[in-house]
Amino acid sequence: MPFAPLQNDTFLRACLGQATEYAPIWLMRQAGRYLPEYRATRARAGSFMGLATNVDYATEVTLQPLDRYALDAAILFSDILTVPDAMGLGLHFVNGEGPRFERAVRTEADVAALAVPDMERLRYVFDAVTSIRRALGGRVPLIGFSGSPWTLACYMVEGGGSDDYHHVKRMLYSRPDLMHRLLAVNADAVAHYLRQQIEAGAQSVMVFDSWGGVLADGAFHTFSLAYTRRVLEQLPREHAGQVIPRIVFTKGGGQWLEAMAELDCDVLGLDWTVNLGAARQRVGGVPGGPGKALQGNLDPAVLLATPEAIEREAVGVLESFGPPHTDPSRRGPTHIFNLGHGISLHTPPEHVHVLVETVHRHSRQMRQRT
Amino acid sequence: MPFAPLQNDTFLRACLGQATEYAPIWLMRQAGRYLPEYRATRARAGSFMGLATNVDYATEVTLQPLDRYALDAAILFSDILTVPDAMGLGLHFVNGEGPRFERAVRTEADVAALAVPDMERLRYVFDAVTSIRRALGGRVPLIGFSGSPWTLACYMVEGGGSDDYHHVKRMLYSRPDLMHRLLAVNADAVAHYLRQQIEAGAQSVMVFDSWGGVLADGAFHTFSLAYTRRVLEQLPREHAGQVIPRIVFTKGGGQWLEAMAELDCDVLGLDWTVNLGAARQRVGGVPGGPGKALQGNLDPAVLLATPEAIEREAVGVLESFGPPHTDPSRRGPTHIFNLGHGISLHTPPEHVHVLVETVHRHSRQMRQRT
Repeated sequence: MPFAPLQNDTFLRACLGQATEYAPIWLMRQAGRYLPEYRATRARAGSFMGLATNVDYATEVTLQPLDRYALDAAILFSDILTVPDAMGLGLHFVNGEGPRFERAVRTEADVAALAVPDMERLRYVFDAVTSIRRALGGRVPLIGFSGSPWTLACYMVEGGGSDDYHHVKRMLYSRPDLMHRLLAVNADAVAHYLRQQIEAGAQSVMVFDSWGGVLADGAFHTFSLAYTRRVLEQLPREHAGQVIPRIVFTKGGGQWLEAMAELDCDVLGLDWTVNLGAARQRVGGVPGGPGKALQGNLDPAVLLATPEAIEREAVGVLESFGPPHTDPSRRGPTHIFNLGHGISLHTPPEHVHVLVETVHRHSRQMRQRT
Repeated sequence: MPFAPLQNDTFLRACLGQATEYAPIWLMRQAGRYLPEYRATRARAGSFMGLATNVDYATEVTLQPLDRYALDAAILFSDILTVPDAMGLGLHFVNGEGPRFERAVRTEADVAALAVPDMERLRYVFDAVTSIRRALGGRVPLIGFSGSPWTLACYMVEGGGSDDYHHVKRMLYSRPDLMHRLLAVNADAVAHYLRQQIEAGAQSVMVFDSWGGVLADGAFHTFSLAYTRRVLEQLPREHAGQVIPRIVFTKGGGQWLEAMAELDCDVLGLDWTVNLGAARQRVGGVPGGPGKALQGNLDPAVLLATPEAIEREAVGVLESFGPPHTDPSRRGPTHIFNLGHGISLHTPPEHVHVLVETVHRHSRQMRQRT
């Protein structure tokens, strides 16, 4: 049975540099703990992994923010560490401390034992993608995602989150051969994973390089960017007759935009330290041509402030990108509004309303000005 | 009694764009927990504040790394939070959790109660500066320092360290008037503090904007850079007939170098995400003329790797800066070697030897090539 036709394709068109009536908006981690209905589903599921691995729960929480807000895209609810978990590292969550692996990857033997996992072990993710796509009924497009090879490596070698990345960096500097092997396995696994998400119904895919920005200049290019490239090379450009836009987000990557612009992707995600107008000059040309669409980049902390501050800062981000491209006959620089990182669990839900309304209203006004 | 004449002025000359025989090197947090002799003194002192507030202990630990390594500068051993402590916020250290204030600054009344502290409350710091300068006996110059107004504000409003800076950012976005008042008090306090360090014997001063990089583009300029400028405006250019070079280090500030280059300082400190060669093109001209000397920027994690990796990466940093300026008759772009952030407590002390030797040897060779 084919999926329902798409009613709001603003996000997909903006990804591809096509003119849109307003700036589409979605929020990283939009299905999450700041929503009381998410916390209720989470409580029923018993645990985070109970939530993430159950198709019905994953579908339910993915749609929750769309029922509240006029968001222009949905993003698969899942964890960033499903792939190394499927490799057998034993993902679990320690209360208040975030993700942990039972078996960290530290030695030559640990690295040698790694392999691209059987994708059947990730069937629950692909089933969730199909279920969500059906439940969306064409309201907005569905974004699939994965952590980048480097970001997965950080968690795999550290054994969990880290403040200083000492273990993974020690391996990188002392045994670059091991690090390259680990990253090659990760890249091929991520490529398989995203391909299957696309086949299951994802209409766009995003690579989260959450920890690319902790790398030194040069090391970023060698150990993060090169393996994101290896992922992208293995993805289909189209599926079922539709182009599948690709988004790459590197937190802390603002100094490396020119290098990232050479990736075979359509959109670059930017954190809040990047000046959007300057980024547009540097790399924000015509997607598919010499440039990328830009996605971002409000500081998530703004959503903790007053409604007046949210309006002011959201308008500031839109104006920083500058006059939008409005010619329907060609492609040009486009802006997809998002936060510069995931939404905070402390965000009052009514503040998200203010943000979405402001972005839609003000970006329409900007198009009337030009 | 005047201080002893300086025997090694390589660091000071490099700060001012003068040609040197090799690249001077010192390390942020070089007097610290990675050294067993530091841990022994710390144990005798009983607590971190017992160490930092005692002139003899502070002198002892400041000199410890100089007895081990051929470093080209000493830096005052002190804490970054002495100034807000002197404002009455009650600094203390919780084991394993870092600094805390008994009274966080959260409300309008809290901010209104802040004032530039009586510098007599910081007498122990100035006495330490004089004691260290005497103990150095002219071996190398002594750098004084302070946290930047914004970085102090982060700790003051959060009440300690933070992962997300939600409290300080909520105030910044919701009540910018309060944040500006807080920062103005901090800037004037830091200026007094650094002026007195200079009078006590500091031969260079450094402003650590450790948390400037957590700010959004634009907010950085308004809430961090503007108040660092306010500090610099109040400092003397010379003392006792000697120019006092000024260093500004913003961790995560690589995207804002052009704006930082307009500060009235001589040196910009860079973290490891910055490409030194590109930074030299952007802002690394003639200090005192159109540019700044550059200080940095090896990833501190490199010191955890093998000696071979340390050599390779240190050479990489030197070569990234490129051919040094060698003409004694003029000023030009200069490089002061440092880490991109403080040295890790997990660093094997013998690894620092490898680094210092490599930097001195290879930077001499580079000068013979030109």
